[in-house]
Amino acid sequence: MTTVGILGGGQLARMLALSGAPLGLRFLVLDSTPDACAAQFAPLLEADYRDEAALADFARRVDVATFDFENVPAESAQWLAERIPVFPNPRALSVAQDRLAEKTLFRELGIPVPTFADIATRADLDAAATAIGLPAILKTRRLGYDGKGQFRLRSAADVDAAWAALGAQATTVGLILEGFVPFQREISVVAARGRDGEFRTWPLTENWHESGVLSASLAPASLEVALAEKAVAYARRVAEALDYVGVFALELFLKDGEFLANEMAPRVHNSGHWTIEGAETSQFQNHLRAVLGLPLGSTRMLGQACMLNWIGAMPDATPVLAQASGHWHDYGKSSRDGRKVGHATFRADTPAELSAALQTVGRELDRELQVAPVIDRLRG
Amino acid sequence: MTTVGILGGGQLARMLALSGAPLGLRFLVLDSTPDACAAQFAPLLEADYRDEAALADFARRVDVATFDFENVPAESAQWLAERIPVFPNPRALSVAQDRLAEKTLFRELGIPVPTFADIATRADLDAAATAIGLPAILKTRRLGYDGKGQFRLRSAADVDAAWAALGAQATTVGLILEGFVPFQREISVVAARGRDGEFRTWPLTENWHESGVLSASLAPASLEVALAEKAVAYARRVAEALDYVGVFALELFLKDGEFLANEMAPRVHNSGHWTIEGAETSQFQNHLRAVLGLPLGSTRMLGQACMLNWIGAMPDATPVLAQASGHWHDYGKSSRDGRKVGHATFRADTPAELSAALQTVGRELDRELQVAPVIDRLRG
Repeated sequence: MTTVGILGGGQLARMLALSGAPLGLRFLVLDSTPDACAAQFAPLLEADYRDEAALADFARRVDVATFDFENVPAESAQWLAERIPVFPNPRALSVAQDRLAEKTLFRELGIPVPTFADIATRADLDAAATAIGLPAILKTRRLGYDGKGQFRLRSAADVDAAWAALGAQATTVGLILEGFVPFQREISVVAARGRDGEFRTWPLTENWHESGVLSASLAPASLEVALAEKAVAYARRVAEALDYVGVFALELFLKDGEFLANEMAPRVHNSGHWTIEGAETSQFQNHLRAVLGLPLGSTRMLGQACMLNWIGAMPDATPVLAQASGHWHDYGKSSRDGRKVGHATFRADTPAELSAALQTVGRELDRELQVAPVIDRLRG
Repeated sequence: MTTVGILGGGQLARMLALSGAPLGLRFLVLDSTPDACAAQFAPLLEADYRDEAALADFARRVDVATFDFENVPAESAQWLAERIPVFPNPRALSVAQDRLAEKTLFRELGIPVPTFADIATRADLDAAATAIGLPAILKTRRLGYDGKGQFRLRSAADVDAAWAALGAQATTVGLILEGFVPFQREISVVAARGRDGEFRTWPLTENWHESGVLSASLAPASLEVALAEKAVAYARRVAEALDYVGVFALELFLKDGEFLANEMAPRVHNSGHWTIEGAETSQFQNHLRAVLGLPLGSTRMLGQACMLNWIGAMPDATPVLAQASGHWHDYGKSSRDGRKVGHATFRADTPAELSAALQTVGRELDRELQVAPVIDRLRG
């Protein structure tokens, strides 16, 4: 009997547990909140990630540890890795936690990135704003996600406000200024790498955001073959440089036919949720297979898939369940503004079928705006 | 928040909970054993099915109840149904629990059945052996499953031994003598019926047994359209007669181009396990949708699927996981002779692909005999 420990007990841990159950695995989730939604289907160890006694208990009770949450303190990951196998390894986690380290690595690997600069002081910000040019985005190096910890500078007049908003964090989590990329599309590579170095990617995914949060994903992304191959090559380079084990996502901006790497997520990723129904093997099961040293499953697609995120509160399930292609995912979380509470995946054999389902559901749920860009893309 | 109560905590309850989690459901499993495998992923109420205080507690904690186990005492199901919604209804459960009531119903509905007779005494057995003719099978009316509680009479000389083996049960669970059917194939209809009467079936499944226990299933079963339609019509007739809500399986013998109904299982069924990966909606999720009054999901197949049962002990997972089409299901149970401990499903686009996977896995796991009849059938 193998027990997998998961640091963080949100919907990713929940879906990991659900997809790992058929492998005969048991789970233990470490989370600081008693109502962590993964705890509805897996035992919970309620504790802070920095609580060493709890980490010791966790390490005793699991055979291998992995992450639902990338911002687990690097020292906690390191402490665990000295005692039990931890995948991805703490170095990969710590690089992915830090926008500066991440972008520096991408650049070293020959992966194009937006211009960026480390910002330690107000003077750094002034200099970088001039060097990089505006518009640009001031971001925290660590602990930002879903558009949080970001400030957009449109002109020199915004520098004061940006520094007022985020300057205090220059000495805590650090800051980075990134040139704004007026990209046409956002593409993600969801990839899995095994303990033995085997590397697989699912078909590429196109993503749309709303207020900085993923709103919809479509797979396969319609891309020229050479471009798609480049994206996969970038992901492989990152995985090999970090000796990465497990699933991760590489987010790429597509601008004028060229990719610019935005960031990587060192875990299963929202843009890969469609793989539960839309691929032979889901990102969740392949993450577990990778972490356990089992053969990776096939990442081939079954038709076409679109995922719609439910943010804040769950809509009525009926219109989705009534679609032959509709699959419902309620994370069992309470409603809260901006919170990811669930998603739906639509899987169909043809773009026309997929488009029709999205149109109906968009209308019935009053979410035409959410489905519109996907339908546009499916029309080609 | 809706909580579904499941009477019985085996692999069926486990797979119900895993497939119901995405619907945002919570579960409570009632089982008399502390190590019920569903309890690895759902809360367990450990009690006997006849414990009225436990049933009252169960009824208070759930919104609707259903079954993993068809032999829950009819009085317990009735007691619950007077307090909370219970699906399938207790009458359907009690008919399906009793081979005599079941076959009588089938006959009333114009569904062909093997000849049979109620056996209350040794004299009944003698008379029925003459009237039905031998070979025939003496079976307990209730509580038999997977070939247990059966005695095959090849000639008049076996009557004494049959009565010695099962006669004592004539006054407890009852006995039935059934004419032996030298059938060519066994087909099952896995069907779902909603609270509103909506009726759907998955593509028909062909099954192979080993020592009375399901060994392999193949879907879609290769059958003439008219014959397949007849099987579906029989299942619909049964469902409507019982006002059945949920998933059930109707097992049919195919002999000389005609069906004879063997039995029905008033629950999700082993011959429908392939639907997890092989159909747009699994039998488990559709059972829950039916029970909750939600729209039923599409039952269309994705390619071809073969399920192999693992009986007694789990084989090595690696050969299955290494197949692109291979999906693993370990129920988290300890090994025990004759016990269903897991299964594997292979899904492929073509019979040739499926056949090749089965051949490789059969060889690598030393289970050529288990895969042989399926490969033969795929060759056509």
